[in-house]
Amino acid sequence: MIDQRLPRRVTVVEVGPRDGLQNESSIVPSSTKVAFIEALANAGLPVVEITAFVSPRWVPQMSDAADVARAVTRREGTRYLALVPNRTGLARAIEAGLREIAIFAAASETFSRKNINQSIDDSLTAYADVAAEAARGGLRVRGYLSTAFGCPYEGAVAVERVVEVAERLIEMGCEEVAVSDTIGVAHPRQVAEVVGAVSARVPRERIALHFHDTRGTALANVYAALQAGIATFDSSAGGLGGCPYAPGAAGNLATEDLIYLLDGLGIETGVNLDGVIDASNLIAAHIGHPLASRYYQAVQATSSS
Amino acid sequence: MIDQRLPRRVTVVEVGPRDGLQNESSIVPSSTKVAFIEALANAGLPVVEITAFVSPRWVPQMSDAADVARAVTRREGTRYLALVPNRTGLARAIEAGLREIAIFAAASETFSRKNINQSIDDSLTAYADVAAEAARGGLRVRGYLSTAFGCPYEGAVAVERVVEVAERLIEMGCEEVAVSDTIGVAHPRQVAEVVGAVSARVPRERIALHFHDTRGTALANVYAALQAGIATFDSSAGGLGGCPYAPGAAGNLATEDLIYLLDGLGIETGVNLDGVIDASNLIAAHIGHPLASRYYQAVQATSSS
Repeated sequence: MIDQRLPRRVTVVEVGPRDGLQNESSIVPSSTKVAFIEALANAGLPVVEITAFVSPRWVPQMSDAADVARAVTRREGTRYLALVPNRTGLARAIEAGLREIAIFAAASETFSRKNINQSIDDSLTAYADVAAEAARGGLRVRGYLSTAFGCPYEGAVAVERVVEVAERLIEMGCEEVAVSDTIGVAHPRQVAEVVGAVSARVPRERIALHFHDTRGTALANVYAALQAGIATFDSSAGGLGGCPYAPGAAGNLATEDLIYLLDGLGIETGVNLDGVIDASNLIAAHIGHPLASRYYQAVQATSSS
Repeated sequence: MIDQRLPRRVTVVEVGPRDGLQNESSIVPSSTKVAFIEALANAGLPVVEITAFVSPRWVPQMSDAADVARAVTRREGTRYLALVPNRTGLARAIEAGLREIAIFAAASETFSRKNINQSIDDSLTAYADVAAEAARGGLRVRGYLSTAFGCPYEGAVAVERVVEVAERLIEMGCEEVAVSDTIGVAHPRQVAEVVGAVSARVPRERIALHFHDTRGTALANVYAALQAGIATFDSSAGGLGGCPYAPGAAGNLATEDLIYLLDGLGIETGVNLDGVIDASNLIAAHIGHPLASRYYQAVQATSSS
């Protein structure tokens, strides 16, 4: 049986309040964000990425980062995470009470330059500084590795490059690297290849996978990654986030869809699916389009018919 | 490597013109259906289910079955299939030039009674008659086995029941049984279990799988089925069809999403993905809602942005 190889327990990292809302055009009231984050924690999500301490000029959706971070009532057993682009962001995050941060590197040179206005090397040098500073403060650091399965500008991305940047993120002190399919092009064979290559240099338990469902393949990729021994996955409640490179298309893998799959496979997550739906319901009216989660849509359709 | 176990070639059975359009509330003009079917054949789909010879009183969407079947220009290398519920339907199909038919049985007693107004046993007795008559005419017969992974009325469906009905369909002369997740609840572990059980009694090459993407799991289920040695899958261009048990939710697995996955896995299908998009474009304006295919949506979004 194939399933004997699957992990018994998976950690789901909820990225809806940050990666999700950052990529929605709507500006959601801070109080709604806080209620959303608290509902996600109450649903049992063990890690919630709550905001980003970035420039409000570039990312107006996250301009209330400190307010949100301070207002959220912490729940025992939940870890709260925020993205920081640099040491200024780190200082703001620490001041707002964060104990975990994430940094955001790329495997594609063009994407790195267009997205964060730095070469990959320069970004890693700067991030090493941020990570060292975070370590001195006793913070846990997560590293995103974007465009690991393809780049909106370059197309294919060499697996060697993914491995190299992943390793550097780990070396600079990231506890975990989130290997990310930023544009939702990955397929299961590629997942097996990339995980195989990265895990030759980074322990499997420090690899997370971050899929987008832009072409419908996210859960097939999760299944392939589970078979390759990966036990941490990112997802976004309701599928919040869209795809910035194909506006109107699906983006982040929806937490509901992921939990439905994992529940079906008998893999423990500690997450209550109805609780995730409750959280998505809080945010649905503020987004300006239907939530992309297939499971969420099925529940809505059934309850209204 | 897991992939060495995957089939090298897969047969995709396009069900959009029948299973898809039958479950849309819009009535599509016959000439559009004909153009749609011809575009699907031109895209390289080896089997196209073009219509159903059912009562127009119950299924007004298929009332032009004979007209459509007669008008379609046949393409060398494409097989054309139509659903028939009984001997009257079979006679009409033969008269309209069909050489392949499909019958529609269920694994759930309640579903059978509600959907075709017969017990499973009675339906199989009647279908055996249809299949015998078809065989006398030299026609190929396909058997759908609905609610094989769950029933909208009964919930769980016993695997033994699925195996039993699958075997009876093969015994009565079906060349192939399409084990169907009518309500889109299946998960990959269940797929492995059901395929394992059915294939103990029915040769794998005579088993097709028919998934719905109602909860986002369709491609994960396809991947699990490929690993279990299945090489025939049903899908619907654009994801046409919706879910009759959750109106507004996704239904049939989209052909675009399936082909994107299979292309990524390096599995031959003979189907041209752009050609499928062309076919979906022909029908999109007639449906009254956006097509559900993730891949189709991503292509539309990219080309309009």
